[in-house]
Amino acid sequence: MLKNQEKFTTVEQMEADAARLKELACAACAETWEDRRVKQTPQCNFGENGICCRICSMGPCRITPKASRGICGADAHAIAGRNYLRMAAAGSAAHSDHGREIAHVLHKSSREGSYHVRDEGKLLNLAREWGIPTEGRDIYDIAHEVAEAGLWEYGKPFGTLRFLSRATGERQKLWQELGIAPRAIDREVASSMHMTNMGNTADAEALVRQSLRVGMADGWGGSMMGTEFTDILFGTPTARATEANLGVLEREMVNIIVHGHDPAFSEMVVLAAENRELIEYARSRGAKGINIAGLCCTANEVTMRHGVRMAGNFLQQENALLTGVVEMICVDVQCIFPALGPLAECFHTKFITTSPIARIPGSIYIEFKSETAMEQAKDMVKMAIDNFGNRNEAKIFIPQNKQAAVAGYPCEQIIRELDGVTNSHVDITGSYKPAIDCIKAGVLRGAVAMVGCNNPKVRPDYSHIEIMKELLKNDILIVASGCSAQAAAKAGLLSKDAKYLCGAGLRRVCDLVDIPPVLHMGACVDISRMMLLVTGISRDWGVDITRLPVVGCAPEWMSEKAVAIANYVVATGIDTYLGIEPQVKGSARMMELITEGTRKLTGAGYIINKDPHELVKNIISGIEAKRAALGI
Amino acid sequence: MLKNQEKFTTVEQMEADAARLKELACAACAETWEDRRVKQTPQCNFGENGICCRICSMGPCRITPKASRGICGADAHAIAGRNYLRMAAAGSAAHSDHGREIAHVLHKSSREGSYHVRDEGKLLNLAREWGIPTEGRDIYDIAHEVAEAGLWEYGKPFGTLRFLSRATGERQKLWQELGIAPRAIDREVASSMHMTNMGNTADAEALVRQSLRVGMADGWGGSMMGTEFTDILFGTPTARATEANLGVLEREMVNIIVHGHDPAFSEMVVLAAENRELIEYARSRGAKGINIAGLCCTANEVTMRHGVRMAGNFLQQENALLTGVVEMICVDVQCIFPALGPLAECFHTKFITTSPIARIPGSIYIEFKSETAMEQAKDMVKMAIDNFGNRNEAKIFIPQNKQAAVAGYPCEQIIRELDGVTNSHVDITGSYKPAIDCIKAGVLRGAVAMVGCNNPKVRPDYSHIEIMKELLKNDILIVASGCSAQAAAKAGLLSKDAKYLCGAGLRRVCDLVDIPPVLHMGACVDISRMMLLVTGISRDWGVDITRLPVVGCAPEWMSEKAVAIANYVVATGIDTYLGIEPQVKGSARMMELITEGTRKLTGAGYIINKDPHELVKNIISGIEAKRAALGI
Repeated sequence: MLKNQEKFTTVEQMEADAARLKELACAACAETWEDRRVKQTPQCNFGENGICCRICSMGPCRITPKASRGICGADAHAIAGRNYLRMAAAGSAAHSDHGREIAHVLHKSSREGSYHVRDEGKLLNLAREWGIPTEGRDIYDIAHEVAEAGLWEYGKPFGTLRFLSRATGERQKLWQELGIAPRAIDREVASSMHMTNMGNTADAEALVRQSLRVGMADGWGGSMMGTEFTDILFGTPTARATEANLGVLEREMVNIIVHGHDPAFSEMVVLAAENRELIEYARSRGAKGINIAGLCCTANEVTMRHGVRMAGNFLQQENALLTGVVEMICVDVQCIFPALGPLAECFHTKFITTSPIARIPGSIYIEFKSETAMEQAKDMVKMAIDNFGNRNEAKIFIPQNKQAAVAGYPCEQIIRELDGVTNSHVDITGSYKPAIDCIKAGVLRGAVAMVGCNNPKVRPDYSHIEIMKELLKNDILIVASGCSAQAAAKAGLLSKDAKYLCGAGLRRVCDLVDIPPVLHMGACVDISRMMLLVTGISRDWGVDITRLPVVGCAPEWMSEKAVAIANYVVATGIDTYLGIEPQVKGSARMMELITEGTRKLTGAGYIINKDPHELVKNIISGIEAKRAALGI
Repeated sequence: MLKNQEKFTTVEQMEADAARLKELACAACAETWEDRRVKQTPQCNFGENGICCRICSMGPCRITPKASRGICGADAHAIAGRNYLRMAAAGSAAHSDHGREIAHVLHKSSREGSYHVRDEGKLLNLAREWGIPTEGRDIYDIAHEVAEAGLWEYGKPFGTLRFLSRATGERQKLWQELGIAPRAIDREVASSMHMTNMGNTADAEALVRQSLRVGMADGWGGSMMGTEFTDILFGTPTARATEANLGVLEREMVNIIVHGHDPAFSEMVVLAAENRELIEYARSRGAKGINIAGLCCTANEVTMRHGVRMAGNFLQQENALLTGVVEMICVDVQCIFPALGPLAECFHTKFITTSPIARIPGSIYIEFKSETAMEQAKDMVKMAIDNFGNRNEAKIFIPQNKQAAVAGYPCEQIIRELDGVTNSHVDITGSYKPAIDCIKAGVLRGAVAMVGCNNPKVRPDYSHIEIMKELLKNDILIVASGCSAQAAAKAGLLSKDAKYLCGAGLRRVCDLVDIPPVLHMGACVDISRMMLLVTGISRDWGVDITRLPVVGCAPEWMSEKAVAIANYVVATGIDTYLGIEPQVKGSARMMELITEGTRKLTGAGYIINKDPHELVKNIISGIEAKRAALGI
């Protein structure tokens, strides 16, 4: 019996909430991205097609029917290729710099301070992996040495990245042969900037190869480090219940939103909000308590470790403030609208920036220091409480939609769930074999990693949700991260009840293993977890990654980080389905390279389709083709 | 008695030569930058003003009268500031990656191989400066340890750059206070990319501060390292006679042009061309010998170490091929027109690329390896010789203009010259005091560092030459590097006869010290030498750098490297006069920050004027104002 479809939130319902909030915004004279999007239309075709070059001050140059080359002689392929590589480099720099920040926090962790080693087992495993002595040593000594070894990965002058050895032997060999095994993380970023600087590489294929390499410096470098060290510091996530969408904001409570990507500070805010004195203080100011909610990937981080509820994803950040009940929005790095500055001024909301990497006008800047993090977090929570009385009742509207969700399925949790259905007398545990058997048997047809942002170029969340629903119907398991996971959460697809949207095979698996059909794997840096998941499946199956019925999909991507991710996913041998076109359309050579050219190198490439219904058809036929090739 | 003005080459004469070559290009159906410049006109105002954002795929967004913010809410200041920081970061990455390449070459240097330690004294001094033991050690052991220490500067996780300690105490303190002392070189590049990634820093001042920091990672980091290690490997330059302009190409000889920036490979080509067997081989093929000529900064490098003649600067690279007598153009990295690919196809010229950083379609790629460099260089010289017979007589025209020049005045040479006029019984030697005394006395009014590229936005070389002539007339000594130095060379301003263009004071100094009034300090990475020169003058004078009548000027800059340079020059406290506007005009806040805002931070800023005659007036009045403030 199918569960009542009304249980799930539709995009139309989300849009109705957004429309109501938009009315309030107009009343408050506040501008939102919808207004700015209209004013930015039509967008520049040269930029959209990647054939505008601003790399030196002889320019800007543009490729036109009358001008096939820029002043230096760079053609469309060189210009689009350089722009593309710079996007990948910036994305890799962003994720990896986040990873570096966490490494520095681990390096300063101590028994007495704000930051502790929470997952000793993971730390010890990593120390062993890296040949760092553990026997008889204080756990913090080990932590500091591991952190330092991690930090050297950013700048060591010789060799390639340590984490590459986690890949399958086949991948490692291929990367060496192709010359795309990344050296130090920052070096790949700097070399990419050098290659794209005026008068350097103009050959599109060389630019695409370096895009793969700098992407891998992210996925098999900075992001993977960020994920590992975050788990060590704050605990490896486990499945836990939460809720998602603006309905998690509370009329009667002090609402504090944590937004961004780096959990180092938001973890402290979450803990500070549990402080009894502060809760008492909130009550003394007329609130029923303190409600922390997350936005964007910071939400993913604190959700899967604390069950903190998720207010929404990227394009919902302004809507959260428009409810009029957010006392404070506290941000760290990445994906933060500069628009929050002027928007916060239309409301009582305090907008707090905390990182030197993300200085934003109109915010109160409280630079996060790991030494004083907990004290700073408490001060901020107090500031939010003091702001509770400043709400303007006339401006309040909290949409009631919210969905139950289960979040927190890193590889360890997936293995744990699979072990739960393994007969330990007959089969080995700690393996992906039960899942592989389901795929082989056709109970599951395959798996898709749903990732990426929102983008006003398409209807927000619509592509995510439409594609996911269609995949579920077709017995395709989903792992999700970032804003895609939050779209799923808002729609109810992270709830165990989502099994009612699945085909019979997937539904049976969900019932048996007791999981939702969309597994929340974390933030966008956690796509590194997906690389390890696929690597594990490839190993346990004995089949090369490129042959597995497993693909990635970013239907609404927006950030340069997504370009870095797409590159490392393709380098890892996983086909990547995109609903937004990379901005290289003005170069036929680049279009060929990113779709078919990389396939000749790494065995994978992009499949691009702006129509989500067409895109999901492409995905399903891609998965079925891989199944057919495997003879399953 | 004034020397006959006809001795000097005017811009009009250079332009006449270029026009003649252009006619030949048309006859050969070859396109040049002039054609492409016309086709690129008008250029996009959004790009020109820095208010086009392509940092995420929600865009491109543009600031217009109706749209004051991009979709995310970034305003003109955020957009222009991010674009500006990215230019500085890319420039710093380029210079520094060049420095890294040289460090790796030093790390592989050996008695037996192609690369040797030529300046042991400089190596030993640097080892001592860095606390690396020297006593009783093999010079190559020391070289390898120094090289490795240098390589760690790119990626060390803690601390700031070693070379900062070379600055004046006042600067070091200021940089610490401002929080702009650079950490590891690549880290500053990666952090800049992170800060400018979507949803990070939108505050213009924070972006400008990071521009200063990433610029310093170049000038007091990667570039300084590049210069030091190049001197160690290939010898610290000394003043030597050479010639400049296309007239250095030889009708009867095999002409090989080395072009780019990194001298590691071109040094080998220069040595290979001196090989007796190859010279014999050239003769056997009907040539009178092998003529190596340089273009761009590779020219500066080999000129000041071997006296290799300079064919020209940046905008002359196509003209060199248009002479029809270039058997081979061999390039390394940076400032290489992709146009050379199709252009070389119109002639018999072999176009050789050698670096994975600069892969260019239409070239023969011979990847330079330090282990096999000399053999590779010999093979290439042979290939050029074999190409001698393939000239098309109908396409040959060598403009006859060339000028004698003296090149090679690093700090060591300047000190040596000054020691020559010091009475060692009375005064201390090894000091800039004689020069300071001349400035104090008013015999010299001050000094200007002339640097930077050509840019078709202004009449090529015209601004360089007009400004220099006016400065000389006003008794202002010039130190020059890069394409500016080559413009001076082509005009004859690097010859000792250029004293006849000087005011009485400067002319007296030239006579007495026996130097030209424009001192060639090297390539664009060698602007780090200028930082040490100014630091030395400040120390010997006991006056803060910001108060010295010493400024920088880049009247025709084009590359992102120039943005990095301008930032470290300003961070060092030296006013910088620009003849091309940085692309931030669309933001009043950014314009204020780069002209006056940095002055409040570092004591220096940009002065921008597109008219060279106005710009030189600005320079002279700036210098006179500094003199007045010093009471001299």
